[in-house]
Amino acid sequence: MKKLINDPENVVRESLMGMAAAHPDLIRVNFDPNYVVRADAPVQGKVGVISGGGSGHEPMHGGFVGMGMLDAACPGAVFTSPTPDQMLEATKAVNGGAGVLHIVKNYTGDVMNFEMAADLAKGEGIEVKSLLIEDDVAVQDSLYTAGRRGVGSTVLAEKICGAAAEEGRSLEQVYEVGCKVHDWGRSMGMALTSCVVPHVGQPTFDLPENEMEIGIGIHGEPGRTRMEIKPANEIVEMLMEPVINDLPYKQGDEVLLFLNGMGGTPLIELYLAYNHAVKVAEKHGLKVVRNLVGPYITSLEMAGMSITLLKMDEDLIKLWDAPVKTPALRWGV
Amino acid sequence: MKKLINDPENVVRESLMGMAAAHPDLIRVNFDPNYVVRADAPVQGKVGVISGGGSGHEPMHGGFVGMGMLDAACPGAVFTSPTPDQMLEATKAVNGGAGVLHIVKNYTGDVMNFEMAADLAKGEGIEVKSLLIEDDVAVQDSLYTAGRRGVGSTVLAEKICGAAAEEGRSLEQVYEVGCKVHDWGRSMGMALTSCVVPHVGQPTFDLPENEMEIGIGIHGEPGRTRMEIKPANEIVEMLMEPVINDLPYKQGDEVLLFLNGMGGTPLIELYLAYNHAVKVAEKHGLKVVRNLVGPYITSLEMAGMSITLLKMDEDLIKLWDAPVKTPALRWGV
Repeated sequence: MKKLINDPENVVRESLMGMAAAHPDLIRVNFDPNYVVRADAPVQGKVGVISGGGSGHEPMHGGFVGMGMLDAACPGAVFTSPTPDQMLEATKAVNGGAGVLHIVKNYTGDVMNFEMAADLAKGEGIEVKSLLIEDDVAVQDSLYTAGRRGVGSTVLAEKICGAAAEEGRSLEQVYEVGCKVHDWGRSMGMALTSCVVPHVGQPTFDLPENEMEIGIGIHGEPGRTRMEIKPANEIVEMLMEPVINDLPYKQGDEVLLFLNGMGGTPLIELYLAYNHAVKVAEKHGLKVVRNLVGPYITSLEMAGMSITLLKMDEDLIKLWDAPVKTPALRWGV
Repeated sequence: MKKLINDPENVVRESLMGMAAAHPDLIRVNFDPNYVVRADAPVQGKVGVISGGGSGHEPMHGGFVGMGMLDAACPGAVFTSPTPDQMLEATKAVNGGAGVLHIVKNYTGDVMNFEMAADLAKGEGIEVKSLLIEDDVAVQDSLYTAGRRGVGSTVLAEKICGAAAEEGRSLEQVYEVGCKVHDWGRSMGMALTSCVVPHVGQPTFDLPENEMEIGIGIHGEPGRTRMEIKPANEIVEMLMEPVINDLPYKQGDEVLLFLNGMGGTPLIELYLAYNHAVKVAEKHGLKVVRNLVGPYITSLEMAGMSITLLKMDEDLIKLWDAPVKTPALRWGV
């Protein structure tokens, strides 16, 4: 196993310690239970926005904690849901009196544990709403999911809901804008290689040297199909077409195009793929008005990419453009 | 070869097209000769700062073009120096009448071609100064270099010289602050895996499953030694000790600690390594006052990292903190 680690059991903890050391102006890290929280939390009178999930998808979610995005993130073990006590403590830590939004990717463990945490938080008098993200059009059910998996739209929902909370919207309003991201965002991914989970030490799956997997999940869950590797432009089309065909796009719509790297694919390839993705969008009459290109929701060192389209309106554009100051996304401030 | 590309010969061009499509607010891309240039270039009365080198190290250099950093970047073919005409045209495109600084990594081809471009530009009446970066303490001479290779300090020099130019300093002053980065910065890198150059199609070198290479260059040039993979903390020490021992650090110095990913190493590992690197710095009496953690000077999908230490003073800290707005680095604006 070729990794820069010490003990596989301590990877998440030591990495969180590094994050805390690198970004004391932006975040604090709490241990036992583990969560990353805005340095200035709780912000009084502001809706708290939290998310969480298995580690190994960095910078998601901890890298998105800070002004204008998440108030806290709960990292589980690698590819493993965080526990309800992490989510409960994070919810309490960001509660500024205006309620807390949980952004939950649709994986069975995450959903169950966030539900439990929400119930416990409500029992302590904190208003909580839960936004489920289920944007992956590749498969209907999956190894870890009933229903569609939650992938790229999560990053966009975290930015947009975070901006809405930052400008003082109510919990109901922040939730509503999150629902718009849910309704208007679709994704699909692919992999050229597997990744190696540190405490497993072996590739999650085998993929022959000349093959790729289309529709793969972010934990290496099976996708739609395996086939011989094609030129990048064809691969882009294989991801874009199902996304565009799966509602609710129509000619003339404005979209955000998010071309995400799975971790091991270099930026030179992501921009190359983005170049063609814009053309495919335009061919379908979509106007790309905003974009994000880079490794934001990864699968350790997996080579591959995912593409997310989010239909935008004036409000979503305004919230996307709003200032953000986190370890992984920063602009306007 | 597991890559998201179409034709190996077109990788750089198609990737540049994607960059241009993604960041029209920040940059423009000129083709034939290829260079990435600030959208608002030339900025009248401002010193122009340009750099360049082989592609495959993204986001360096094109990702660093924008307000507060580079005015232009010249991308060569993958791992191949750009040509003098690229550098000459970029120099002319950013010349706002106050002269142009060339930031050159010490590789024989880059040095030769930038020298030729500088001579040609001077012949056209443009004042040019060249800042050579040679910060890699691993080896004295290398496959592509007489003298030390230029690596991580380049990113820091581009940010700091860019900020100095932005605040209106003269060419001589921008050059001087660059010399400080040259004198006060040291780096060393290591790799767990090779990378594959697209038009070669095979790994640049073989590294057995249980081995790593310490002191490797960013093109896979041989380093100091190969050995069995060690725990991350030991690897960090193997990089930090030669860097710290190689002048000009002393007890109590303030430093910027740049923990750079080579491309294929996930962020979770980079933060884990950063966590220990800070401790090693502190053990030597250094105070880490600024940091940068992430893949900024990469070798395609190579797994590994490099560590750069730059001694800081009040002026360097001010220039580091100054606003920057580029595709890959953005803060304060």
